[in-house]
Amino acid sequence: MNLNRTPIPVTEAVERVVERIKPLSVETVSHTESYGRILGEDLKATMDVPLFDKSAMDGFAIRAADSSGASGENRVEFEVVAEVPAGSTSDYELKQNEAFRIMTGAPVPESADAVVMFEQTRQAENTFTVRKSFNAGENIAIRGEECREGETIVPEGTFINPGAVATLATFGYKHVKVYRQPIVGILATGSELVDIDAPLEPGKIRNSNGPMILSQLKRMNIDGRMYALEADDFDALLGRVRGMLQEVDAIITTGGVSVGDYDHLPKLYEALGAVELFNKVGMRPGSVTTVSMLDDTPLFGLSGNPSACYTGFELFARPALLKMMGHDRIHAPILDAVLDGDFKKANPFTRFVRAEIDYRDGRVYARPAGFNKSNAVTSIARSNGIIVLPGGTRGYEKGDGVKVMMTDMTTGTPQFDL
Amino acid sequence: MNLNRTPIPVTEAVERVVERIKPLSVETVSHTESYGRILGEDLKATMDVPLFDKSAMDGFAIRAADSSGASGENRVEFEVVAEVPAGSTSDYELKQNEAFRIMTGAPVPESADAVVMFEQTRQAENTFTVRKSFNAGENIAIRGEECREGETIVPEGTFINPGAVATLATFGYKHVKVYRQPIVGILATGSELVDIDAPLEPGKIRNSNGPMILSQLKRMNIDGRMYALEADDFDALLGRVRGMLQEVDAIITTGGVSVGDYDHLPKLYEALGAVELFNKVGMRPGSVTTVSMLDDTPLFGLSGNPSACYTGFELFARPALLKMMGHDRIHAPILDAVLDGDFKKANPFTRFVRAEIDYRDGRVYARPAGFNKSNAVTSIARSNGIIVLPGGTRGYEKGDGVKVMMTDMTTGTPQFDL
Repeated sequence: MNLNRTPIPVTEAVERVVERIKPLSVETVSHTESYGRILGEDLKATMDVPLFDKSAMDGFAIRAADSSGASGENRVEFEVVAEVPAGSTSDYELKQNEAFRIMTGAPVPESADAVVMFEQTRQAENTFTVRKSFNAGENIAIRGEECREGETIVPEGTFINPGAVATLATFGYKHVKVYRQPIVGILATGSELVDIDAPLEPGKIRNSNGPMILSQLKRMNIDGRMYALEADDFDALLGRVRGMLQEVDAIITTGGVSVGDYDHLPKLYEALGAVELFNKVGMRPGSVTTVSMLDDTPLFGLSGNPSACYTGFELFARPALLKMMGHDRIHAPILDAVLDGDFKKANPFTRFVRAEIDYRDGRVYARPAGFNKSNAVTSIARSNGIIVLPGGTRGYEKGDGVKVMMTDMTTGTPQFDL
Repeated sequence: MNLNRTPIPVTEAVERVVERIKPLSVETVSHTESYGRILGEDLKATMDVPLFDKSAMDGFAIRAADSSGASGENRVEFEVVAEVPAGSTSDYELKQNEAFRIMTGAPVPESADAVVMFEQTRQAENTFTVRKSFNAGENIAIRGEECREGETIVPEGTFINPGAVATLATFGYKHVKVYRQPIVGILATGSELVDIDAPLEPGKIRNSNGPMILSQLKRMNIDGRMYALEADDFDALLGRVRGMLQEVDAIITTGGVSVGDYDHLPKLYEALGAVELFNKVGMRPGSVTTVSMLDDTPLFGLSGNPSACYTGFELFARPALLKMMGHDRIHAPILDAVLDGDFKKANPFTRFVRAEIDYRDGRVYARPAGFNKSNAVTSIARSNGIIVLPGGTRGYEKGDGVKVMMTDMTTGTPQFDL
């Protein structure tokens, strides 16, 4: 048993994981199922937008030249000869001082070249007058002014947000290529764990890490699969993980990573022939977090302590899984914030403190979320971010500037910017 | 047709909607299905946490008094008499200078009162020595130190995040009360709209607002229902909306809100007997956004222009629907950001500009996302936030301080803090 693991800095640990990860293959889904997936192809415009010169206002389409010389003292009169509602068009050839009544979004007929808003007219039965002259193109959205056919609108690797779904619909993409979602297997180890149904015998606790990780995955739009051990020994563990490797793209274990006699993970990695990327990180909680790779499959060995488990997932599993999903913004943003409560405990290592984030007057405020030992589960329930305190010799006071990891965002940033 | 609607300020419009909304009823779901829902009851601790005095480290459990007087020159020796792995316990009564080998998370036997970490010892076959004295309680997590049975851990109204799911599991809540999700009906109006399958005849565009709103709802963990019109006339619209009112908790229409001749919404509200909360807002895009209430059912009349529709949804529908879901943080946070591109166009009204948000060195940077007319759909696809520019007489330049609405977050803030 190696008691003298050498901790590596958090940023280096994150980098070691991410650089090994390869995106999964691409599959095709319906545009209505595409929200939250990652584009597996460039989304190109299939036509000009707008596809036709279009009225930007409700009003009258005229020949701009006919309004020349109009003023408050010399109002120019037009006769309304036809109507063009949205979705229709007209082939009628306007003659001098004739106009179409036209609605927003309707194609401007060829013979007109400007739109006068209702509010700019004084209307009578079938006529109206204007008090200023108009230029060709006024209040018209010109064909192709938003984009041209063939242009890349959204590049491959982009998170498909509601606007991207709208864009798919606009361009008639009934189906779209997206990256496959990773299948993630979860295995909570530890003979102290019992199911949510089971009575709590002395020394036992309920398995909370499994449901928590399932939810962390769901937040990323990934379905996790829970696995269980049939016996609490090394052979059962090895057999289970070998079986999982046939079924999943990534494995997350909790527990079994510290130096205790019953911690089997280092032995497991050795037996599998996995390459250990690190087995100790200069951070609290979660210093004994371990990550290994078996070919292209990452094995995340998270701590059994809930808060350490939570933080380890967000720091290492999240960006790795997002990279597997083809995402180009894999890291949670890290923002400047004002510390909104004391955190007196000094620590030689980078410390991740579960926090309640609030927003006032445009600024981010972060308050340590209650009890903050690494085994605290209740504090995570109240937290919507993680305060990052650099290692050092002093504690922190209310009002100090700190950094916070924003774990509650659906899109992130390309850089791990600690 | 009233051409002289009076615009009200955005903040007042948001307030008028939110104050009318009532939370829906409460239902029971499995803890594994609870992620993303809103707690419909206080989540109380069903036991002390930890439930027993627990070793916080891998090491040896001793009677602290036995280590008294230990120093580098005068190491004190202990004999290991039994082992306590996690999940087990021991009734053995320690005698002087005896110790248990104990693992993290294991109950500290009654006869011990301190834990010595492996790293603090020099070990031999069945003995070890220490070079300092230990205090009672060292490296032990005391029963109830995290929370006491009966304590409220997470209050009703809280978004159930992964940590809350873990807390449910910890306390054995196999099921939990949550607010019912609203059923939201979507009706895109406009004779220019065709389905994603249909060929684009002159003057037609594909319906992109419907799929976009479905995705905006999905981002909030709500399933929307799409409805269609059978004919493009007022009777068909009235009949359809009357039918929807039997089936849904909220209705979102797009299009039909401007002053054009074919815009039926004001007439519709009148026919239904709905109370119009406002029909014009001092903002761009989306100034003609209309919201009405029919008893407890909100009717959101969003603009048919995609960007105006998107913004109207985020400003008005999102907080209203979150309030129906019982959420206590219903508004998107609004943060200080650095403008990362010019926006030269001045505007007398508050302007909402779709933006690409980035994060560098702890700060938020916001760049206008391409083409920014209200009919622009492609710019929403690249945006992950909305820049808010106050009305005024000047444009804005790169480097200016601006506010951004963070639309991509799963939790928000109680105040609309514009």
